[in-house]
Amino acid sequence: MPTSLETSLFIRACRRQPLERTPIWVMRQAGRYLPEYRELRAKHDFLTVCRTPELAAEVTVQPIRRYGFDAAILFSDILLICQALGMDVEFNPGPVFKSRIESLADVSKLHTGEVAEKLSFVPGAVRASRELLKGETPLIGFAGAPFTVATYMVEGGGSRNFERIKSLLFTAPEAANALLDTLTQGTIEYLGSQAEAGADALMLFDTHAGLLAPEEFDRYVAGPVDKVARAMARYNVPIIYYSNGTAGALKRISQLPVQVVGLDFRMDIGSARDILGPNLAVQGNMDPVSLLAGPDQVRRRARQVLESNAGRPGHIFNLGHGILPNAPLECVQALVDTVREWRPTA
Amino acid sequence: MPTSLETSLFIRACRRQPLERTPIWVMRQAGRYLPEYRELRAKHDFLTVCRTPELAAEVTVQPIRRYGFDAAILFSDILLICQALGMDVEFNPGPVFKSRIESLADVSKLHTGEVAEKLSFVPGAVRASRELLKGETPLIGFAGAPFTVATYMVEGGGSRNFERIKSLLFTAPEAANALLDTLTQGTIEYLGSQAEAGADALMLFDTHAGLLAPEEFDRYVAGPVDKVARAMARYNVPIIYYSNGTAGALKRISQLPVQVVGLDFRMDIGSARDILGPNLAVQGNMDPVSLLAGPDQVRRRARQVLESNAGRPGHIFNLGHGILPNAPLECVQALVDTVREWRPTA
Repeated sequence: MPTSLETSLFIRACRRQPLERTPIWVMRQAGRYLPEYRELRAKHDFLTVCRTPELAAEVTVQPIRRYGFDAAILFSDILLICQALGMDVEFNPGPVFKSRIESLADVSKLHTGEVAEKLSFVPGAVRASRELLKGETPLIGFAGAPFTVATYMVEGGGSRNFERIKSLLFTAPEAANALLDTLTQGTIEYLGSQAEAGADALMLFDTHAGLLAPEEFDRYVAGPVDKVARAMARYNVPIIYYSNGTAGALKRISQLPVQVVGLDFRMDIGSARDILGPNLAVQGNMDPVSLLAGPDQVRRRARQVLESNAGRPGHIFNLGHGILPNAPLECVQALVDTVREWRPTA
Repeated sequence: MPTSLETSLFIRACRRQPLERTPIWVMRQAGRYLPEYRELRAKHDFLTVCRTPELAAEVTVQPIRRYGFDAAILFSDILLICQALGMDVEFNPGPVFKSRIESLADVSKLHTGEVAEKLSFVPGAVRASRELLKGETPLIGFAGAPFTVATYMVEGGGSRNFERIKSLLFTAPEAANALLDTLTQGTIEYLGSQAEAGADALMLFDTHAGLLAPEEFDRYVAGPVDKVARAMARYNVPIIYYSNGTAGALKRISQLPVQVVGLDFRMDIGSARDILGPNLAVQGNMDPVSLLAGPDQVRRRARQVLESNAGRPGHIFNLGHGILPNAPLECVQALVDTVREWRPTA
C-alpha cells in the first residue's frame, strides 16, 4: 500500500509540497550508536542480520521507536550486490574483498542475471519492515550507486587515494564500462525488487562520486545513475540521489531524473539549491561530527541548517553523511527535537 | 632580484596580464616520476635532500632542465614545520608521527618561536635554487596551509576518514584554535624566510581543506590562510592558494587576499572562475591520473582544460593534484608540448 503514505511528511517533502514542519531522518540511523542495535548485533553477525528479514526489519524500526524519525530506511548494505555477483566479501567491520576487479576478464566472470534472486531476502526485509511500521512511517529502499560500488570492487575494500579505480578508468576504460554496465543492470533488478515489495521511496548512495573530473563524472557516475533512475520511474515512488564531495558537479546532478538530491555538509543548502534549481527537493546536510559537540551546539547547528534552506518547500532534514557510532543519544534527541519544533521565522 | 622575473610568463599570468601563451608547471614536478630524481634519491634519503640546500636545489631544477617548465617549485615538504615545532615525524615514504596532538596540553608543548631558525636550510635551498635557475625561471616557495598541517599532527599521519581532526574541532575547539594559531604564526615566519631569500612567488597547499562544513571552513581553513596571506603581502610576490575538494567553498576562497587560486580537477575552470570573479588568476586543473591514459588522451585532455578557461587572462596550467610517481615521461612531454603550442581559437 505505498499510496497510504503519500500523505506522510516525508513523501510530501520529496514532492516539494508545502509542509507544517520539516521531516527528519538520519543516514545510518539503524546502527551502532543505538544500544538496542548493539544488543541485537551481539547475538547476530552483520550479514546474518542483513539476510534474515525478521532481524533486518527489527533493526530497521529501532530508530523509529526511539526517536520517531519521519522515514525508516531498510537495514542492509550497499555491497551485498557484490556477493550476489559472485565476489567474496567479508565485513570485519569494514568490507574486505578476497579478490579485486582488475580487467575486462575479471568483469566477465561476474555472475550477472542472478542478482535479484540471490538478494531475495532484501525484498523480504522490505515486507517485514513495512509490517512492523504498520503504515505509519514510510520505508526507504536503497542501493549503492554503480560507481561507488565499483570503487569497492576495484580497490578491494575501502581506500584512501582510490588509485586503482582511477587508474582503471583511464587505462582500461572498456573494463570500467563493462563493470559499470553490469552494476547498473544489477542495481536496476535489485532496487526494482525493493520497489515491488513496497518500498515507499528509493535511494542511491554515491559516497565516492566526488573523485572525478567532469568528463569522468558524466560517464561513470551520472550515466549509470541516469539509467537506474529512469528504470525506477515506473514505480512512481520518489528517488533520492545522495552523493558526497560533489559540490562542483551539482549542475550535472540537477539533470538527473530523480526527485530528491542528498547533500553532503560541505555547502550550505541555499547555495546548493541555487544551483540545483526549483524542481528538486533536497535532503541534508548537517555535519555528522557536529553531533559530538554537545546538545547546545547541536541545537544551534540544526537551526543553522534549517535556516540555510530559506523556507523553500522540499527540504528533508538529514546529516550530510552517516551518523557516527559514537554520537551521543542525548545529542540525537536534541537534534530531533530542534527540527521538530522549528518553524521558519519569515 | 625578484624583479628580474616580473616579465616571466608565470609571474605575468599570476598578475592576470594578457599573454602570448599559457605557462605550465606541475605540482610535485620535482619527484619520483623523474629517473634523475630517483637516481639522486638512491644516494640520499628524503630528509637529507630537503635539509641540504645543494641537493634540494639540484632536485628543484631537474624538471626545469628536462621539460622547461615555466616555474620551479622548491623541493621541500609541508610537514618539515612539524619537526621544527618539536614533533617526531618520519617519512617511509608517507609521514608517520611518533605522537599525536590530542589536547590543549599537547599544543602547549610545541616549540614555537624557533620555526624559521630550525628551518634555515629552506631559505638556503631557495638561494641555491635561484643560483642554478640563473634568473631564467621563477621559483615558488611554499608551505602547507595551517589546517592541512594540523590534520597530519592530529591524525598522526595520513588518514582515510579524518575522524580525529574533525572530532577535535567539535569537542575541543580551544585546542584546535591554539594549534591553528601556532601553525599560522610558524607558517608566517617560515614562508616569510623563503620570500626574504628570494622566492618569486609563495604557495600555500591546503590539500585537506575539503573536509569541512562552511562554518568550520571559515574558522579553521580560511581564517588562518587569510592571516598568512596578509602577513606575506609586504613581500609583493604573488601568493597562490591551492585547496582540494573545495568546490563548495569557492565563494569564500574568492575573498582571500591571494592572487592565484589553485583548483583541483573536480570542476571545469570556466565554472570555477564564474564563482571566483574577475580579480583572481587560476592555476590547474587536469586530473593527474589522466597522464596514465597515453599521449593522445593527454593531448585531448590538456586542450579541454585550456579551452575551459575560455581565454580569460590569468591561467597557469597545472594538474589538479600532484603528479603520480608512475606518470610516463612521454605523457608529461605530450602535456608540455600541447600547452606550449596551444593558442585560443576564438
